[in-house]
Order: sequence, then structure tokens, then C-alpha cells
Amino acid sequence: MSQTKFFQNSVFIQETASIVGPKEADGPISGYFDRKLEDDLLGQKTYELAESKLHALTIRLLLNKAKLNEKDIDLCIGGDLTDEIYCSNFAMRDFDIPFLGMYSACATFGATLISAALYIYSGQMNKVVCSTTSHFSSAERQYRFPLEFGNQRTPLAQWTVTGCGASLLNNKEGHIKLESATIGKIVDFGVSDVNNMGAAMAPAAMKTILSHLEETSRDADYYDLIATGDLGDGGLQLLKEIAKDEGIRFDKTNCTDCGILIFNREAQKVGQGGSGAGCSSAVFNGYIYNKMIERQYRNVLLVPTGALISKTSSLQGQTIPGIAHAISFERI
Amino acid sequence: MSQTKFFQNSVFIQETASIVGPKEADGPISGYFDRKLEDDLLGQKTYELAESKLHALTIRLLLNKAKLNEKDIDLCIGGDLTDEIYCSNFAMRDFDIPFLGMYSACATFGATLISAALYIYSGQMNKVVCSTTSHFSSAERQYRFPLEFGNQRTPLAQWTVTGCGASLLNNKEGHIKLESATIGKIVDFGVSDVNNMGAAMAPAAMKTILSHLEETSRDADYYDLIATGDLGDGGLQLLKEIAKDEGIRFDKTNCTDCGILIFNREAQKVGQGGSGAGCSSAVFNGYIYNKMIERQYRNVLLVPTGALISKTSSLQGQTIPGIAHAISFERI
Repeated sequence: MSQTKFFQNSVFIQETASIVGPKEADGPISGYFDRKLEDDLLGQKTYELAESKLHALTIRLLLNKAKLNEKDIDLCIGGDLTDEIYCSNFAMRDFDIPFLGMYSACATFGATLISAALYIYSGQMNKVVCSTTSHFSSAERQYRFPLEFGNQRTPLAQWTVTGCGASLLNNKEGHIKLESATIGKIVDFGVSDVNNMGAAMAPAAMKTILSHLEETSRDADYYDLIATGDLGDGGLQLLKEIAKDEGIRFDKTNCTDCGILIFNREAQKVGQGGSGAGCSSAVFNGYIYNKMIERQYRNVLLVPTGALISKTSSLQGQTIPGIAHAISFERI
Repeated sequence: MSQTKFFQNSVFIQETASIVGPKEADGPISGYFDRKLEDDLLGQKTYELAESKLHALTIRLLLNKAKLNEKDIDLCIGGDLTDEIYCSNFAMRDFDIPFLGMYSACATFGATLISAALYIYSGQMNKVVCSTTSHFSSAERQYRFPLEFGNQRTPLAQWTVTGCGASLLNNKEGHIKLESATIGKIVDFGVSDVNNMGAAMAPAAMKTILSHLEETSRDADYYDLIATGDLGDGGLQLLKEIAKDEGIRFDKTNCTDCGILIFNREAQKVGQGGSGAGCSSAVFNGYIYNKMIERQYRNVLLVPTGALISKTSSLQGQTIPGIAHAISFERI
């Protein structure tokens, strides 16, 4: 069977919610997020508990915006970057809703959308919440160094977004439908620099985009926007270079990256741009969704990308497997 | 909608595979596993790479047993206990098959079965591989102490299984069908002892079993076997106690636990029994599947249970959220 699944007219976005941290609130698309945190600890004792609370708050906000109760929701499906998806599992203690946890690094939001769309398409569920989160401070100390260490950042590093985005998918109402989706395969091109994840993920993004375009018989310019997430600036340039070799031209389409959209890269000193499981989810549910509602974009391909490292694998000198999933949205 | 999903006659187990380590090979159900490892490092430099190889070998064995090629498989879906599901992501580098990673601790195998069943029920996929793995030595050093430390084990601790189980689900052939499944909710009863995970998971198992029996209008004795995985001995006793209070009696049904089945608990000195994402998957795909094929059991309810701790959450003194998913199998 094809890697790409088509959902006909059966899966729609009913509502979205997004909450971001103070640094993201200073970025260029700040006005599109529902809420901006002043305190990125949210009154909690640890950054992980703060991220859990951010995750729970975003799902609660989504339910409120959609005027729904917990019992109206068939399933929540989500993940994050912390070990054992701490911040998703702990967030879900607050909800009396069945839960499935996923892990696909920064591509997790894509994985949740695809799963939810297939569950709804099966006719077995009507309303599914997809949500992913990340937090700069929990990610730094887990993957890199304790903040107190005050290390210098390398030029190809990215800045983990403090943010959470959530989509409510359903089987009948909404102005945007999930038209199709391509589930990614794992690609490892031998990159082992954990500070250059864009290079590890760009080949995975290319492979998924190529499969998607081939299986849908589309050119890249079918899409008004192709948004990867999160290759950063270097990774996106690399993707465009590889694409040329593959005969794909992104000239006529607006091809960008969620990690580039969310920050003023140079002014905010975020290296190559934003990253994190909450980056593409916040950018999609805040910015892209609303741009589609405003009819600035009709057809959008969201391509969340993940660098599948663990602390352990990088300490063991292993290379970084990459993955990317692609989801095609259409403004009705 | 109901937490329980029914799959009619559309999802079957086509084939299974299981590989276990040397200690599991000394256990009472050893003869049911396809392969037993003599070297639990599998010639690798680290336990995590050994677990990755174990995972890849099991999927390869499954494909060989089913006489299928990679291109015949729509999707692999899997997970494990290592940070960022290292051992699943790295295993999947060896396969040109789309991949979705899940994390539900020791309940992950249940989560993959339910997702795969819904994907197949949707008509969008025909063949999906579900697989989960765990390794005693990678789990010990991640969650507890380095092996070299030689710490004493506490009386309520469990022994992480070195093993991997994989099921090939499909839409038409097989002697066992997935009849229905109940997706779990997260339950936190305030247990914070990481050496007593059975107590943290028992209430989650009870909640899921109660929902399942209520939504299917069944008594517990509808099932010839209810197998939780992995509460261990103490956790299973606790479940049976709670069940009495709920008016559910397991007297007439064979209610046991995958962690009890896999070891000679006292002789092998494994504390309360086995645990790990590879425990219920190896026991199901080795022992239970074959017992069903032999017609010893007709209706089986597998209830993989997960203790959703992370190293970080336990170091931060947090309690342990639990989850359990239930899958009903029927021998045709």
C-alpha cells in the first residue's frame, strides 16, 4: 500500500489552541497564539512540572474554546521531548479521557495528527485531541547542559520552543480538512553532531516530501505553503539543495520552517531557529491554522521532522536517525 | 463514545514472533518462544544497541515466518522503555517501512495493538507490525542503578524482562481475531515508591477492566484467560482485592499476569515477577498466542499495564501515574 493515506471528506479541524512562553511571545507571529506566559515556570517547582501544566492548560483551553466537556472527547493523543514523555503523561492525570502517548521527537505532532485522522476515518471515534509540548529549560538540561552551566551555544544549534499546540479533530465540522498524510520512514545519513539536528532531519524531510508528491501526483507548487518543523535555517537550506538534486523546485511555493517562523532569528539569538515538539504544534495551531482561516493559504503541507536521538545514544557516539511525517490540509 | 472499540471480523493476527534472553529461557514457558539468546549483548558494545538489535531481529523473524517482504508491510508501530525509545528508533533504521513510535511504559504493546487494529479497521492499511522490547540491563541502569553498583533489590521490585515480541496484524487471515479493545485512562493513586510499580498500576488495570466489562456487557468469566502485564505478584493480588470491592470476581476465570508467567518467581529470584515493555509482548506472542492456537483458550483479555514514571519525575518525588489498555482476542 501507499505510504500516503487519503481521508476524503471525513476529518476536519474543529478547533485549535496554542500557548507559548515569554521568548516566543516576543517573536514575529506572537499575535497568533491564544495565550502568552509571563512566567515560564507557571508557579511550579520544576520545569518539567511547568511543562506538564502548560500541556494541561492548552488542552483545557482547547476544550473551552470548542465548548466541549471531557466526556465529549474520545481520545487524547500526545507527546513531548522529556524522558518517558513525562510532561504528557502527567498532564493527562487532569483529564478523564483515554490517552495514547506517542514519541517521534519534534515530529510527534505529525504522528498524532495522522493517528487521530485514521482513528476518525475508521468511524470508531468522532473527536480526538492531538497535542504536543516542549519547554526550553526542560529540554536544555535533558539533552544539553544544565542552564546554570551557562555554556556557549554552537552556530548550528537550535532553540527549543517553550510552547504547546493542540488540535481538536472531528468527523464533521470545521473549515479546514485533513486531506491526506504520508507516514515517514526512518533515515540515517550518518550525522552525529547533536548540535546540527537540521542536517540529520533534512534527508528524512526530503524522503517524505518526495513520497508524498509522487503518491499524490502533485508538484510542490500544488501547496501554497510547505512548512517543515523544525529544520531551522541551515536544515531548510540543506533541504532545498537536496530538493534541487531530486528535481523538485520550491521556487513557486512558499517553503519555510516552523522553527524559522516563530523567532526573529538574529535579533532573538536563537541560532538556526526554534525546535521542539511544541514548535510545529504551536506554530501550526496558532499561526498556520489562522492564516488558513483568513484564506491566505488554501493548501498547506505540514512536515514535522524529528531527530531521534536520546542522551544515551549521543553519549554512545551514535549517529542521529531522522524522521518526517507530512500532513496535507485544505481550506474548505 | 465508548472507550471500547469493536473490530467485527476485520482484524486478525497473521503471525507472531518472540525472542527472549538467557534468564527468560530458563523460565517455565521457555518452550513457547521462537528464539532464546545465549548472549544478551548480541555482540554489541552497549546494552542499548543490544536491545535495538533484539528488536530488529524479532521484526525480521516475524517477516520471515510470515514469508513477507518489507514492501508488504504498511506500517511498523512500536516502542520500548529506553529514553526517547532509543531501541525502537534505532531498530527501525534497518527497515524500509513507515514507522510510528509509541510510549505507554510496559503497556506500550497494548497501545500498539489498539492503534494498529484501528488503522486496519479504517481500511487504509492491510498489514501492520506491532512490536515492543525491553532489556534488563538497559532498564536497570536507566531507572535504578548501574549493574556494577550491585545494589540489593527491594521485596516489591520486579525484574525487567530481556525480550521482544511482535505481532503481524492484517485484515483477512489468521486463527485469532482482535475482537475489541478498551483504551486506558491515566490513574494516579498517589503511590510514589518506584520499587512498587504493581501498586501504582493495579488501580489503572481495574479501571480499564471495569470499563471493558461494562461496555461489552460481559462478566469476567466470559474470558478463559485474563492476563495483565505486568503487575507482578503483589500487584495482581492487589487487583484481585480491589476487584472484590467492585463486585468483580475472578474466581471462575484464569486471571494471571505476564510477569508471573515468564519466570519461576522464587527460584529465579525475580522479586514480584517480570516487567518491561518486552514482557507482555514476549509472553503474548510466544506463550498466549500459541496456547490459543492449541485451543487451550478461546477468549483472552490481555491487559498490558504501564507505570508512567520517568527518572526525572521520581527524582523530583512525584507519584506514579498508571495506565492499562485491554485487548480482547478470540480463537476462531
